[in-house]
Amino acid sequence: MVFDHRWYQLRQDIVSLPNGQTVDDYFVSLRPDIATVLPITADGQVVFVRQYRHGVNEILLELPAGTFNPQEEPLAVAKRELAEETGYVAEEWKQIATFYNSPVKQNNRIHLFKARPARLAAQQQLDITEDIEVVLKPVADIPALIASGEICVAGTITALALGIPGLF
Amino acid sequence: MVFDHRWYQLRQDIVSLPNGQTVDDYFVSLRPDIATVLPITADGQVVFVRQYRHGVNEILLELPAGTFNPQEEPLAVAKRELAEETGYVAEEWKQIATFYNSPVKQNNRIHLFKARPARLAAQQQLDITEDIEVVLKPVADIPALIASGEICVAGTITALALGIPGLF
Repeated sequence: MVFDHRWYQLRQDIVSLPNGQTVDDYFVSLRPDIATVLPITADGQVVFVRQYRHGVNEILLELPAGTFNPQEEPLAVAKRELAEETGYVAEEWKQIATFYNSPVKQNNRIHLFKARPARLAAQQQLDITEDIEVVLKPVADIPALIASGEICVAGTITALALGIPGLF
Repeated sequence: MVFDHRWYQLRQDIVSLPNGQTVDDYFVSLRPDIATVLPITADGQVVFVRQYRHGVNEILLELPAGTFNPQEEPLAVAKRELAEETGYVAEEWKQIATFYNSPVKQNNRIHLFKARPARLAAQQQLDITEDIEVVLKPVADIPALIASGEICVAGTITALALGIPGLF
């Protein structure tokens, strides 16, 4: 471990390659897995969240998502994060895929769930550092939101492609 | 800067939130932008690369991609990375989108180009640490490769969704 903070852990590895070379500077950012939720309401709207993302210094429109606590089950994370970030719940939950966001320098996976019919059941429960706007968009409007760049995060676009057949 | 190595730069920021709170532990991994190429041959095959990805300790199938050098133009990076990783060239290059992979803790963007008709023109030019297999897949086979998990990286799935209308 070359950097070990509560919010960021970085490991430096020595790697032996098949060609006999040894590389001593492969860095891996150790991150918890993430659950991403594609919530769709009974009238065909997707529940998005809009929030400030500090890495790129922009306010972005994405699907609800959150990180695992140790030993947590993917579905439990997905349900909790949807409820906390949006106040929405859903009856039917289906795991659609598991994928990587950044497999070169990160070790974590994204677990994608589709949740239907999503309905507002409570208030958001946000951390003191969170400021999240819930935004509903009809499925039919999503291609234009991607074309305009308003939806511009790979994990969200991947989830929409995998979870809404015929969208692209 | 809390960690500053040639292959990994990590910055710790003090951030004032709109609600008056101050957070002193927002970490941003500073990374160069990436060009990702969706190369399609005249007979409808996509040119993929298969290589070991150390962050997740797996050999993965992805689209060709590479990082910017300082001041480099996106199209130049895309052409160079396609040629180096695969030996393929193309006549028509079209920028399809720019998106974020990980906007919370990284600052970089992915510039996506579609390249047609892709044709083999030279040998790969690989670094000593690279071991890349070039793999052609018919467009029609891609949905099954995603469903089986053989294609499982968000940036590649996003590029396929945005670059091949009707695929999903």
